[in-house]
Amino acid sequence: MSPSDFKSYLEENFQISFNNIPLLQEALTQRNYLNEHPKETGRDYQRLEFLGDAIMQATVTEYLFKRYPDWDEGQLTEMRITMVQTKSFAHFARVIHLNEAIRLGKGEEMNGARDRASLLEDIWEAFIGALFLDQGQKAVVDLLNQTVFAAIDENFFDQFIDFKSRLQEKLQAQGSVDISYEIEKEERNEDNSQVFEVFVAVDGKTLAHGAGQSIKDAEKAAAQKAYQELTAK
Amino acid sequence: MSPSDFKSYLEENFQISFNNIPLLQEALTQRNYLNEHPKETGRDYQRLEFLGDAIMQATVTEYLFKRYPDWDEGQLTEMRITMVQTKSFAHFARVIHLNEAIRLGKGEEMNGARDRASLLEDIWEAFIGALFLDQGQKAVVDLLNQTVFAAIDENFFDQFIDFKSRLQEKLQAQGSVDISYEIEKEERNEDNSQVFEVFVAVDGKTLAHGAGQSIKDAEKAAAQKAYQELTAK
Repeated sequence: MSPSDFKSYLEENFQISFNNIPLLQEALTQRNYLNEHPKETGRDYQRLEFLGDAIMQATVTEYLFKRYPDWDEGQLTEMRITMVQTKSFAHFARVIHLNEAIRLGKGEEMNGARDRASLLEDIWEAFIGALFLDQGQKAVVDLLNQTVFAAIDENFFDQFIDFKSRLQEKLQAQGSVDISYEIEKEERNEDNSQVFEVFVAVDGKTLAHGAGQSIKDAEKAAAQKAYQELTAK
Repeated sequence: MSPSDFKSYLEENFQISFNNIPLLQEALTQRNYLNEHPKETGRDYQRLEFLGDAIMQATVTEYLFKRYPDWDEGQLTEMRITMVQTKSFAHFARVIHLNEAIRLGKGEEMNGARDRASLLEDIWEAFIGALFLDQGQKAVVDLLNQTVFAAIDENFFDQFIDFKSRLQEKLQAQGSVDISYEIEKEERNEDNSQVFEVFVAVDGKTLAHGAGQSIKDAEKAAAQKAYQELTAK
């Protein structure tokens, strides 16, 4: 997808109408692409990434601060960590099809960089930097409302939370306790996939059950349920 | 200085007129003060610090990005590191007399927390968070123009730069070289203070001279001069 096709895509799908196309192009350009195209006069994305990284951090921070007026700084920080990180930004880069619009060097293309989370994170930040310069802070918030902030309501960020560690911290805050996970059921479906059911217990007392296609997933599901029940009290 | 006196001080000296006094108070309140005053209903500064930290980072980033259009992301990052750090924020907290307005617990007061850089950094960030909420981003930029950004032109941040390390990185970028510092003069003033003069040489060739009241200061001055001459080329 060329930068001008991507501009049209953004207009149709996210109501974003870029004015400064060279700026959009800069956000989508990887260094080796410029080395291979010496007639190109623009820069690569790295300066815009420097800007966009700070804009993302501040915009997410302001949003969480206002959305959760009762949370303390520890809860806010935990939530921000799950939102502002490589896997998250790479996901949203794909959601808005940034991956298809990157101008990559040939070697990077062959090495699969177009689907590499670390590059997609950089490009997401660079794109946010360009959007901020071209359209202002409100346009950034509008885009995040349609993507990153909407994902909170879909529990999207739960996948990045280590609920087993959180449950352990919570349970051991007042001193040492014995936490155990045990399999209570194991089934094989007709398509040969498996389903595990486990429970998590503290000092022998069952807190919650969970299921998943691997033991790890089932344990995480049980830990998440126990953690959420404990913190809801 | 009470929060309302501090409000007047801000109006007279920085043209900042806070609307939400409880918010200003929250930014100035340390946790133990609340423990000692159970009738106080407000919070301590920590939520506002979470917000203000991100606002400072983004505001400094945008400023540097626009002020130095020819710098690459490495130069921008280096400059931001010297500006966004404990000693820097503690300094500006004192400049606007935040230290006099903090509501501290008695134990912290006795332990000298009012002059502790880490607390002053937190309070600076919390104050910026409160200013952002009360008056918006433009008011934050206005205050930084009078303080943090003005300090760039006074070379204030040079004191936080490790010029000896920077010079070494610069000189060794193309391979190993021999860097040496040597004292060329040592004088004792009538008040018993000393002045040292040193030069820095690379592979035996003198790059620059520097003077200071300690050998360390003189070496730093020589390294700074050599580094700035090399990077100005």
